Amino acid sequence: MMRFMTKDSSPTAAALIIGNEILSGRTADQNIVMIARKMAALGLCLCEVRIVPDERGMIVDALNILRRTYAYVFTTGGIGPTHDDITMEAFAEAFGVPLIEHPQALKELTAYYGGSENMNPARRRMALVPEGATLVDNAVTAAPGVRMDNVFALAGVPEVMRSMLDALDGLLSGGPPLFIQTVRCEGIPESLIADELRALAEKMSEVEIGSYPTFQGEQIGLALVMKGMDDSKVREAAEKAAAFIRAKGGAPKSMEGY
Amino acid sequence: MMRFMTKDSSPTAAALIIGNEILSGRTADQNIVMIARKMAALGLCLCEVRIVPDERGMIVDALNILRRTYAYVFTTGGIGPTHDDITMEAFAEAFGVPLIEHPQALKELTAYYGGSENMNPARRRMALVPEGATLVDNAVTAAPGVRMDNVFALAGVPEVMRSMLDALDGLLSGGPPLFIQTVRCEGIPESLIADELRALAEKMSEVEIGSYPTFQGEQIGLALVMKGMDDSKVREAAEKAAAFIRAKGGAPKSMEGY
Repeated sequence: MMRFMTKDSSPTAAALIIGNEILSGRTADQNIVMIARKMAALGLCLCEVRIVPDERGMIVDALNILRRTYAYVFTTGGIGPTHDDITMEAFAEAFGVPLIEHPQALKELTAYYGGSENMNPARRRMALVPEGATLVDNAVTAAPGVRMDNVFALAGVPEVMRSMLDALDGLLSGGPPLFIQTVRCEGIPESLIADELRALAEKMSEVEIGSYPTFQGEQIGLALVMKGMDDSKVREAAEKAAAFIRAKGGAPKSMEGY
Repeated sequence: MMRFMTKDSSPTAAALIIGNEILSGRTADQNIVMIARKMAALGLCLCEVRIVPDERGMIVDALNILRRTYAYVFTTGGIGPTHDDITMEAFAEAFGVPLIEHPQALKELTAYYGGSENMNPARRRMALVPEGATLVDNAVTAAPGVRMDNVFALAGVPEVMRSMLDALDGLLSGGPPLFIQTVRCEGIPESLIADELRALAEKMSEVEIGSYPTFQGEQIGLALVMKGMDDSKVREAAEKAAAFIRAKGGAPKSMEGY
Protein backbone atom coordinates (compact mmCIF):
# COMPACT_ATOMS: atom_id res chain seq x y z
CA MET A 1 0.00 0.00 0.00
CA MET A 2 1.39 3.33 -1.11
CA ARG A 3 1.89 5.92 1.60
CA PHE A 4 2.08 9.67 1.28
CA MET A 5 4.44 9.96 4.18
CA THR A 6 4.26 13.57 5.23
CA LYS A 7 0.47 13.52 5.55
CA ASP A 8 0.71 11.19 8.54
CA SER A 9 3.18 13.25 10.47
CA SER A 10 2.97 16.89 9.40
CA PRO A 11 0.43 19.69 9.28
CA THR A 12 -1.33 19.67 5.93
CA ALA A 13 -1.66 22.37 3.28
CA ALA A 14 -3.40 22.98 -0.03
CA ALA A 15 -2.92 25.53 -2.80
CA LEU A 16 -5.65 27.18 -4.85
CA ILE A 17 -4.37 28.72 -8.07
CA ILE A 18 -6.83 31.31 -9.38
CA GLY A 19 -6.54 32.38 -12.99
CA ASN A 20 -8.07 31.98 -16.43
CA GLU A 21 -4.62 32.48 -17.94
CA ILE A 22 -3.36 29.17 -16.52
CA LEU A 23 -6.41 27.18 -17.66
CA SER A 24 -6.34 28.69 -21.14
CA GLY A 25 -2.69 27.75 -21.61
CA ARG A 26 -1.65 31.38 -22.09
CA THR A 27 0.61 31.19 -19.04
CA ALA A 28 2.59 28.27 -17.64
CA ASP A 29 2.13 28.27 -13.87
CA GLN A 30 5.33 28.89 -11.90
CA ASN A 31 3.79 29.18 -8.46
CA ILE A 32 2.87 25.57 -7.67
CA VAL A 33 6.45 24.34 -7.52
CA MET A 34 7.48 27.35 -5.40
CA ILE A 35 4.69 26.66 -2.91
CA ALA A 36 5.48 22.93 -2.90
CA ARG A 37 9.14 23.54 -2.12
CA LYS A 38 8.32 26.08 0.58
CA MET A 39 5.90 23.65 2.23
CA ALA A 40 8.53 20.90 2.16
CA ALA A 41 11.13 23.23 3.65
CA LEU A 42 8.75 24.20 6.46
CA GLY A 43 7.76 20.59 7.26
CA LEU A 44 4.24 21.02 5.90
CA CYS A 45 2.57 18.46 3.64
CA LEU A 46 1.13 19.95 0.46
CA CYS A 47 -1.71 17.45 -0.06
CA GLU A 48 -3.73 18.97 -2.87
CA VAL A 49 -3.67 21.74 -5.46
CA ARG A 50 -6.62 23.09 -7.43
CA ILE A 51 -6.63 25.50 -10.33
CA VAL A 52 -9.89 27.39 -10.96
CA PRO A 53 -10.88 30.27 -13.25
CA ASP A 54 -11.66 33.86 -12.18
CA GLU A 55 -15.24 32.84 -11.34
CA ARG A 56 -16.46 33.80 -7.91
CA GLY A 57 -18.65 30.74 -7.34
CA MET A 58 -15.87 28.31 -8.19
CA ILE A 59 -13.34 30.17 -6.03
CA VAL A 60 -15.72 30.29 -3.05
CA ASP A 61 -16.59 26.59 -3.29
CA ALA A 62 -12.95 25.52 -3.56
CA LEU A 63 -11.92 27.85 -0.71
CA ASN A 64 -14.56 26.49 1.62
CA ILE A 65 -13.72 22.85 0.92
CA LEU A 66 -9.97 23.31 1.17
CA ARG A 67 -9.92 25.49 4.29
CA ARG A 68 -12.04 22.93 6.17
CA THR A 69 -9.92 20.00 4.99
CA TYR A 70 -6.35 21.23 5.42
CA ALA A 71 -4.41 23.07 8.14
CA TYR A 72 -3.31 25.81 5.74
CA VAL A 73 -4.50 27.05 2.35
CA PHE A 74 -2.56 29.34 0.02
CA THR A 75 -4.25 31.03 -2.91
CA THR A 76 -2.44 32.76 -5.76
CA GLY A 77 -3.79 35.38 -8.13
CA GLY A 78 -6.60 37.89 -8.33
CA ILE A 79 -5.41 40.55 -5.87
CA GLY A 80 -4.68 43.32 -8.40
CA PRO A 81 -6.70 46.40 -9.41
CA THR A 82 -8.67 45.15 -12.41
CA HIS A 83 -12.21 43.77 -12.81
CA ASP A 84 -10.89 40.20 -13.12
CA ASP A 85 -9.20 40.42 -9.69
CA ILE A 86 -11.93 39.02 -7.46
CA THR A 87 -10.07 37.05 -4.81
CA MET A 88 -10.91 39.47 -1.97
CA GLU A 89 -14.62 39.37 -2.86
CA ALA A 90 -14.48 35.57 -2.93
CA PHE A 91 -12.75 35.48 0.48
CA ALA A 92 -15.38 37.79 1.94
CA GLU A 93 -18.17 35.57 0.61
CA ALA A 94 -16.49 32.34 1.75
CA PHE A 95 -15.98 33.69 5.28
CA GLY A 96 -19.32 35.50 5.40
CA VAL A 97 -17.86 38.93 6.18
CA PRO A 98 -17.99 42.30 4.40
CA LEU A 99 -15.10 43.92 2.56
CA ILE A 100 -13.65 46.88 4.46
CA GLU A 101 -11.02 49.46 3.59
CA HIS A 102 -7.86 48.60 5.50
CA PRO A 103 -6.14 51.81 6.73
CA GLN A 104 -2.62 50.37 6.61
CA ALA A 105 -3.15 48.98 3.11
CA LEU A 106 -4.50 52.33 1.91
CA LYS A 107 -1.52 54.12 3.44
CA GLU A 108 0.97 51.81 1.72
CA LEU A 109 -0.81 51.99 -1.63
CA THR A 110 -0.99 55.77 -1.46
CA ALA A 111 2.73 55.97 -0.72
CA TYR A 112 3.52 53.50 -3.51
CA TYR A 113 1.57 55.55 -6.07
CA GLY A 114 3.20 58.80 -4.95
CA GLY A 115 0.39 60.50 -3.04
CA SER A 116 -3.39 60.67 -2.86
CA GLU A 117 -3.54 62.79 -6.03
CA ASN A 118 -2.50 59.66 -7.95
CA MET A 119 -5.11 57.37 -6.40
CA ASN A 120 -8.05 56.34 -8.59
CA PRO A 121 -10.96 54.03 -7.69
CA ALA A 122 -9.08 50.97 -9.00
CA ARG A 123 -5.99 51.68 -6.89
CA ARG A 124 -8.12 52.45 -3.84
CA ARG A 125 -9.98 49.19 -4.38
CA MET A 126 -6.80 47.23 -3.60
CA ALA A 127 -7.10 48.44 0.02
CA LEU A 128 -10.38 46.50 0.38
CA VAL A 129 -9.91 43.33 2.41
CA PRO A 130 -12.32 40.95 4.15
CA GLU A 131 -13.18 42.15 7.65
CA GLY A 132 -10.87 40.49 10.16
CA ALA A 133 -8.04 39.92 7.69
CA THR A 134 -4.42 40.69 8.51
CA LEU A 135 -2.13 41.94 5.76
CA VAL A 136 0.63 39.97 4.03
CA ASP A 137 3.29 42.45 2.94
CA ASN A 138 3.90 42.97 -0.75
CA ALA A 139 7.44 44.32 -0.99
CA VAL A 140 7.21 44.52 -4.80
CA THR A 141 4.00 46.25 -5.88
CA ALA A 142 2.21 47.31 -2.64
CA ALA A 143 -1.07 45.44 -3.35
CA PRO A 144 -1.24 43.44 -0.13
CA GLY A 145 -2.04 39.79 0.35
CA VAL A 146 -4.19 38.84 3.31
CA ARG A 147 -4.55 36.16 5.93
CA MET A 148 -8.02 35.04 7.08
CA ASP A 149 -7.80 32.28 9.71
CA ASN A 150 -5.84 29.47 8.04
CA VAL A 151 -6.03 30.89 4.50
CA PHE A 152 -3.48 33.16 2.83
CA ALA A 153 -4.25 35.13 -0.35
CA LEU A 154 -1.00 35.67 -2.25
CA ALA A 155 -0.20 37.36 -5.55
CA GLY A 156 -0.26 35.60 -8.93
CA VAL A 157 2.82 37.27 -10.43
CA PRO A 158 5.60 34.81 -9.51
CA GLU A 159 8.12 37.45 -8.36
CA VAL A 160 5.53 38.93 -6.00
CA MET A 161 4.25 35.51 -4.88
CA ARG A 162 7.78 34.47 -3.91
CA SER A 163 8.31 37.58 -1.79
CA MET A 164 4.99 37.02 -0.02
CA LEU A 165 5.79 33.37 0.61
CA ASP A 166 9.06 34.43 2.21
CA ALA A 167 7.15 36.90 4.39
CA LEU A 168 5.27 33.95 5.93
CA ASP A 169 8.34 32.51 7.69
CA GLY A 170 7.56 32.28 11.37
CA LEU A 171 3.77 32.41 10.87
CA LEU A 172 3.38 28.72 10.00
CA SER A 173 3.75 25.73 12.33
CA GLY A 174 5.61 22.99 10.49
CA GLY A 175 6.22 19.36 11.37
CA PRO A 176 9.44 17.44 12.01
CA PRO A 177 11.96 17.22 9.15
CA LEU A 178 11.66 14.47 6.56
CA PHE A 179 14.72 12.45 5.63
CA ILE A 180 15.16 11.83 1.92
CA GLN A 181 17.52 9.57 -0.02
CA THR A 182 17.55 9.16 -3.79
CA VAL A 183 19.02 6.16 -5.59
CA ARG A 184 19.73 6.78 -9.27
CA CYS A 185 20.81 4.40 -11.98
CA GLU A 186 21.35 4.83 -15.70
CA GLY A 187 20.56 2.02 -18.13
CA ILE A 188 18.14 0.15 -15.86
CA PRO A 189 14.39 0.56 -16.57
CA GLU A 190 12.14 0.68 -13.52
CA SER A 191 10.19 -2.30 -14.82
CA LEU A 192 13.29 -4.51 -14.26
CA ILE A 193 13.32 -3.90 -10.50
CA ALA A 194 9.62 -3.12 -9.92
CA ASP A 195 8.83 -6.52 -8.36
CA GLU A 196 11.69 -6.25 -5.84
CA LEU A 197 10.76 -2.62 -5.15
CA ARG A 198 7.15 -3.53 -4.44
CA ALA A 199 8.28 -6.18 -1.94
CA LEU A 200 10.58 -3.65 -0.28
CA ALA A 201 7.79 -1.03 -0.07
CA GLU A 202 5.48 -3.62 1.52
CA LYS A 203 8.11 -4.73 4.01
CA MET A 204 9.28 -1.23 4.99
CA SER A 205 5.99 0.55 5.31
CA GLU A 206 7.57 3.32 7.40
CA VAL A 207 9.39 4.53 4.28
CA GLU A 208 7.58 6.18 1.35
CA ILE A 209 9.17 4.92 -1.86
CA GLY A 210 8.62 6.71 -5.18
CA SER A 211 9.91 5.39 -8.49
CA TYR A 212 10.51 7.75 -11.40
CA PRO A 213 11.73 6.71 -14.84
CA THR A 214 14.19 9.10 -16.47
CA PHE A 215 14.81 9.74 -20.15
CA GLN A 216 17.93 11.50 -21.41
CA GLY A 217 17.49 11.22 -25.15
CA GLU A 218 17.82 7.48 -25.82
CA GLN A 219 19.30 6.76 -22.39
CA ILE A 220 16.78 5.42 -19.90
CA GLY A 221 17.26 5.32 -16.18
CA LEU A 222 15.48 5.50 -12.87
CA ALA A 223 15.36 7.54 -9.72
CA LEU A 224 14.07 5.90 -6.53
CA VAL A 225 13.11 8.36 -3.82
CA MET A 226 12.94 7.17 -0.20
CA LYS A 227 11.36 9.35 2.47
CA GLY A 228 10.57 8.99 6.11
CA MET A 229 10.85 10.35 9.62
CA ASP A 230 13.54 7.81 10.64
CA ASP A 231 16.82 8.53 8.89
CA SER A 232 18.25 5.05 9.54
CA LYS A 233 15.20 3.35 8.00
CA VAL A 234 15.37 5.64 4.97
CA ARG A 235 19.07 4.79 4.51
CA GLU A 236 18.37 1.09 4.99
CA ALA A 237 15.68 1.18 2.28
CA ALA A 238 18.07 3.02 -0.07
CA GLU A 239 20.80 0.43 0.55
CA LYS A 240 18.40 -2.43 -0.12
CA ALA A 241 17.23 -0.82 -3.35
CA ALA A 242 20.83 -0.23 -4.43
CA ALA A 243 21.58 -3.89 -3.71
CA PHE A 244 18.87 -5.25 -5.98
CA ILE A 245 19.84 -2.80 -8.73
CA ARG A 246 23.41 -4.15 -8.49
CA ALA A 247 22.04 -7.71 -8.68
CA LYS A 248 20.51 -6.77 -12.07
CA GLY A 249 23.84 -5.46 -13.35
CA GLY A 250 23.26 -1.77 -12.62
CA ALA A 251 25.59 0.73 -10.97
CA PRO A 252 23.40 2.72 -8.55
CA LYS A 253 24.40 6.02 -6.96
CA SER A 254 22.80 7.18 -3.71
CA MET A 255 22.56 10.72 -2.45
CA GLU A 256 20.86 12.66 0.30
CA GLY A 257 17.80 14.63 -0.87
CA TYR A 258 16.49 14.58 -4.44
CA MET B 1 -19.10 40.53 -13.74
CA MET B 2 -16.16 38.47 -14.93
CA ARG B 3 -16.92 35.80 -17.51
CA PHE B 4 -14.93 32.69 -18.30
CA MET B 5 -15.95 32.80 -21.91
CA THR B 6 -15.23 29.35 -23.25
CA LYS B 7 -17.28 27.68 -20.51
CA ASP B 8 -20.47 29.13 -21.93
CA SER B 9 -19.93 27.97 -25.47
CA SER B 10 -17.64 24.95 -25.50
CA PRO B 11 -17.55 21.42 -24.12
CA THR B 12 -15.80 21.42 -20.74
CA ALA B 13 -12.75 19.54 -19.53
CA ALA B 14 -10.76 19.00 -16.35
CA ALA B 15 -7.30 17.60 -15.64
CA LEU B 16 -6.29 15.44 -12.68
CA ILE B 17 -2.55 15.38 -12.09
CA ILE B 18 -1.58 12.35 -10.00
CA GLY B 19 1.80 12.34 -8.31
CA ASN B 20 3.55 12.82 -4.98
CA GLU B 21 6.55 14.22 -6.86
CA ILE B 22 4.62 17.33 -7.91
CA LEU B 23 3.19 18.02 -4.45
CA SER B 24 6.56 17.50 -2.75
CA GLY B 25 8.24 20.01 -5.07
CA ARG B 26 10.67 17.40 -6.39
CA THR B 27 9.31 17.84 -9.92
CA ALA B 28 7.89 20.94 -11.61
CA ASP B 29 4.79 19.89 -13.54
CA GLN B 30 5.06 20.28 -17.30
CA ASN B 31 1.79 18.59 -18.24
CA ILE B 32 -0.81 21.17 -17.20
CA VAL B 33 0.23 23.75 -19.76
CA MET B 34 0.38 21.10 -22.50
CA ILE B 35 -3.13 19.94 -21.69
CA ALA B 36 -4.38 23.53 -21.45
CA ARG B 37 -2.99 24.41 -24.88
CA LYS B 38 -4.35 21.22 -26.43
CA MET B 39 -7.81 21.92 -25.01
CA ALA B 40 -7.72 25.47 -26.36
CA ALA B 41 -6.63 24.21 -29.79
CA LEU B 42 -9.50 21.70 -29.84
CA GLY B 43 -12.13 24.24 -28.75
CA LEU B 44 -12.58 22.68 -25.31
CA CYS B 45 -12.74 24.71 -22.11
CA LEU B 46 -10.32 23.49 -19.43
CA CYS B 47 -12.34 24.57 -16.38
CA GLU B 48 -10.47 22.99 -13.49
CA VAL B 49 -7.25 21.19 -12.61
CA ARG B 50 -6.54 19.19 -9.47
CA ILE B 51 -3.27 17.73 -8.27
CA VAL B 52 -3.51 14.81 -5.82
CA PRO B 53 -0.97 12.38 -4.35
CA ASP B 54 -0.60 8.67 -5.20
CA GLU B 55 -3.36 7.81 -2.73
CA ARG B 56 -6.18 5.68 -4.04
CA GLY B 57 -8.96 7.27 -2.02
CA MET B 58 -8.05 10.79 -3.08
CA ILE B 59 -7.72 9.78 -6.74
CA VAL B 60 -11.08 7.97 -6.72
CA ASP B 61 -12.90 10.87 -5.07
CA ALA B 62 -11.45 13.44 -7.46
CA LEU B 63 -12.13 11.21 -10.48
CA ASN B 64 -15.77 10.74 -9.53
CA ILE B 65 -16.41 14.43 -8.96
CA LEU B 66 -14.63 15.60 -12.09
CA ARG B 67 -16.08 13.02 -14.48
CA ARG B 68 -19.62 13.91 -13.40
CA THR B 69 -18.98 17.66 -13.66
CA TYR B 70 -17.10 18.03 -16.95
CA ALA B 71 -17.49 16.64 -20.47
CA TYR B 72 -13.94 15.26 -20.50
CA VAL B 73 -11.36 14.44 -17.84
CA PHE B 74 -7.65 13.81 -18.46
CA THR B 75 -5.47 12.24 -15.79
CA THR B 76 -1.68 12.16 -15.87
CA GLY B 77 0.65 9.82 -14.01
CA GLY B 78 0.56 6.46 -12.29
CA ILE B 79 0.37 4.11 -15.29
CA GLY B 80 3.85 2.57 -14.95
CA PRO B 81 5.02 -0.76 -13.50
CA THR B 82 5.87 0.16 -9.90
CA HIS B 83 3.92 -0.08 -6.63
CA ASP B 84 3.24 3.67 -6.65
CA ASP B 85 1.48 3.43 -10.05
CA ILE B 86 -2.13 2.98 -8.97
CA THR B 87 -4.14 4.92 -11.54
CA MET B 88 -5.68 1.81 -13.13
CA GLU B 89 -6.79 0.49 -9.73
CA ALA B 90 -8.30 3.88 -8.93
CA PHE B 91 -10.15 3.94 -12.27
CA ALA B 92 -11.52 0.44 -11.64
CA GLU B 93 -12.76 1.48 -8.21
CA ALA B 94 -14.25 4.76 -9.45
CA PHE B 95 -16.15 3.01 -12.26
CA GLY B 96 -17.02 -0.05 -10.16
CA VAL B 97 -15.45 -2.57 -12.54
CA PRO B 98 -12.69 -5.18 -12.14
CA LEU B 99 -9.19 -4.92 -13.64
CA ILE B 100 -8.71 -7.31 -16.54
CA GLU B 101 -5.67 -8.23 -18.62
CA HIS B 102 -6.03 -6.54 -22.01
CA PRO B 103 -4.79 -8.89 -24.79
CA GLN B 104 -3.65 -6.08 -27.10
CA ALA B 105 -1.82 -4.30 -24.29
CA LEU B 106 -0.09 -7.54 -23.29
CA LYS B 107 0.93 -8.18 -26.91
CA GLU B 108 2.41 -4.69 -27.27
CA LEU B 109 4.23 -4.84 -23.94
CA THR B 110 5.66 -8.28 -24.76
CA ALA B 111 6.92 -7.02 -28.12
CA TYR B 112 8.38 -3.88 -26.50
CA TYR B 113 10.32 -5.93 -23.93
CA GLY B 114 11.62 -8.34 -26.59
CA GLY B 115 9.55 -11.45 -25.94
CA SER B 116 7.73 -13.28 -23.19
CA GLU B 117 11.00 -14.47 -21.65
CA ASN B 118 11.62 -10.85 -20.60
CA MET B 119 8.21 -10.34 -19.00
CA ASN B 120 8.06 -10.23 -15.21
CA PRO B 121 5.00 -9.66 -12.99
CA ALA B 122 5.58 -5.87 -12.96
CA ARG B 123 5.71 -5.64 -16.75
CA ARG B 124 2.68 -7.90 -17.12
CA ARG B 125 0.82 -5.75 -14.62
CA MET B 126 0.89 -2.85 -17.08
CA ALA B 127 -1.52 -4.86 -19.28
CA LEU B 128 -4.19 -4.65 -16.54
CA VAL B 129 -6.90 -2.14 -17.39
CA PRO B 130 -10.41 -1.48 -16.04
CA GLU B 131 -12.99 -3.71 -17.75
CA GLY B 132 -14.54 -1.82 -20.64
CA ALA B 133 -11.55 0.45 -21.22
CA THR B 134 -10.16 1.16 -24.67
CA LEU B 135 -6.42 1.69 -25.07
CA VAL B 136 -4.64 4.98 -25.72
CA ASP B 137 -1.48 4.22 -27.68
CA ASN B 138 1.87 4.86 -26.05
CA ALA B 139 4.31 5.27 -28.94
CA VAL B 140 7.22 5.85 -26.54
CA THR B 141 7.27 3.19 -23.80
CA ALA B 142 4.41 0.77 -24.61
CA ALA B 143 2.60 1.14 -21.24
CA PRO B 144 -0.82 2.09 -22.57
CA GLY B 145 -3.14 4.82 -21.42
CA VAL B 146 -6.86 4.06 -21.31
CA ARG B 147 -10.20 5.65 -22.00
CA MET B 148 -13.19 4.88 -19.77
CA ASP B 149 -16.31 6.78 -20.88
CA ASN B 150 -15.31 10.45 -20.75
CA VAL B 151 -12.07 9.93 -18.82
CA PHE B 152 -8.60 9.43 -20.29
CA ALA B 153 -5.66 8.10 -18.25
CA LEU B 154 -2.44 9.46 -19.73
CA ALA B 155 1.22 9.07 -18.76
CA GLY B 156 3.02 11.34 -16.29
CA VAL B 157 6.34 11.54 -18.14
CA PRO B 158 5.90 14.69 -20.27
CA GLU B 159 7.34 13.22 -23.50
CA VAL B 160 4.95 10.28 -23.26
CA MET B 161 2.02 12.46 -22.18
CA ARG B 162 2.48 14.67 -25.21
CA SER B 163 2.45 11.70 -27.60
CA MET B 164 -0.73 10.36 -25.98
CA LEU B 165 -2.42 13.75 -26.15
CA ASP B 166 -1.65 13.89 -29.87
CA ALA B 167 -3.16 10.42 -30.25
CA LEU B 168 -6.51 11.82 -29.06
CA ASP B 169 -7.04 14.01 -32.14
CA GLY B 170 -10.35 13.03 -33.70
CA LEU B 171 -11.68 11.41 -30.50
CA LEU B 172 -12.79 14.66 -28.86
CA SER B 173 -15.70 16.90 -29.86
CA GLY B 174 -14.61 20.50 -29.55
CA GLY B 175 -16.57 23.72 -29.75
CA PRO B 176 -16.36 26.65 -32.16
CA PRO B 177 -13.08 28.56 -32.32
CA LEU B 178 -12.42 31.44 -29.92
CA PHE B 179 -11.13 34.73 -31.26
CA ILE B 180 -8.34 36.29 -29.25
CA GLN B 181 -6.71 39.73 -29.40
CA THR B 182 -3.97 40.93 -27.07
CA VAL B 183 -3.21 44.60 -26.45
CA ARG B 184 0.23 45.20 -24.93
CA CYS B 185 1.78 48.34 -23.60
CA GLU B 186 5.10 49.06 -21.88
CA GLY B 187 5.38 51.70 -19.19
CA ILE B 188 1.67 51.78 -18.28
CA PRO B 189 0.64 49.99 -15.08
CA GLU B 190 -2.71 48.19 -15.20
CA SER B 191 -3.92 50.26 -12.25
CA LEU B 192 -3.84 53.39 -14.44
CA ILE B 193 -6.45 52.03 -16.86
CA ALA B 194 -8.30 49.63 -14.54
CA ASP B 195 -11.34 51.90 -14.10
CA GLU B 196 -11.81 52.32 -17.86
CA LEU B 197 -11.22 48.61 -18.38
CA ARG B 198 -13.87 47.68 -15.82
CA ALA B 199 -16.39 49.91 -17.59
CA LEU B 200 -15.50 48.31 -20.93
CA ALA B 201 -15.84 44.79 -19.49
CA GLU B 202 -19.25 45.67 -18.08
CA LYS B 203 -20.42 47.22 -21.34
CA MET B 204 -19.11 44.45 -23.62
CA SER B 205 -20.14 41.40 -21.67
CA GLU B 206 -19.81 39.18 -24.75
CA VAL B 207 -16.03 39.63 -24.56
CA GLU B 208 -13.91 38.07 -21.81
CA ILE B 209 -11.23 40.57 -20.81
CA GLY B 210 -8.18 39.53 -18.82
CA SER B 211 -5.60 41.99 -17.54
CA TYR B 212 -2.05 40.83 -16.79
CA PRO B 213 0.71 43.05 -15.44
CA THR B 214 4.16 42.40 -16.88
CA PHE B 215 7.58 42.95 -15.30
CA GLN B 216 10.77 43.05 -17.35
CA GLY B 217 13.30 43.96 -14.72
CA GLU B 218 12.35 47.51 -13.70
CA GLN B 219 10.10 48.01 -16.72
CA ILE B 220 6.43 47.50 -15.98
CA GLY B 221 3.75 46.96 -18.55
CA LEU B 222 0.44 45.30 -19.21
CA ALA B 223 -1.15 42.74 -21.47
CA LEU B 224 -4.92 42.90 -22.02
CA VAL B 225 -6.39 39.72 -23.46
CA MET B 226 -9.77 39.88 -25.22
CA LYS B 227 -11.62 36.67 -26.09
CA GLY B 228 -14.94 35.82 -27.57
CA MET B 229 -16.93 33.98 -30.20
CA ASP B 230 -17.53 37.11 -32.30
CA ASP B 231 -14.33 38.32 -33.95
CA SER B 232 -15.68 41.81 -34.65
CA LYS B 233 -16.66 42.32 -31.00
CA VAL B 234 -13.26 41.10 -29.84
CA ARG B 235 -11.53 43.53 -32.21
CA GLU B 236 -13.83 46.34 -31.12
CA ALA B 237 -12.96 45.70 -27.46
CA ALA B 238 -9.25 45.67 -28.31
CA GLU B 239 -9.55 48.96 -30.19
CA LYS B 240 -11.41 50.59 -27.31
CA ALA B 241 -8.78 49.40 -24.84
CA ALA B 242 -5.99 50.69 -27.10
CA ALA B 243 -7.79 54.05 -27.27
CA PHE B 244 -7.89 54.59 -23.54
CA ILE B 245 -4.28 53.48 -23.18
CA ARG B 246 -3.36 56.13 -25.77
CA ALA B 247 -5.40 58.69 -23.81
CA LYS B 248 -3.11 57.98 -20.81
CA GLY B 249 -0.01 58.57 -22.91
CA GLY B 250 0.78 54.93 -23.72
CA ALA B 251 1.69 53.38 -27.08
CA PRO B 252 -0.35 50.16 -27.28
CA LYS B 253 0.33 47.34 -29.72
CA SER B 254 -2.42 44.93 -30.69
CA MET B 255 -1.97 41.43 -32.05
CA GLU B 256 -4.05 38.39 -32.84
CA GLY B 257 -3.72 35.62 -30.25
CA TYR B 258 -1.64 35.93 -27.09
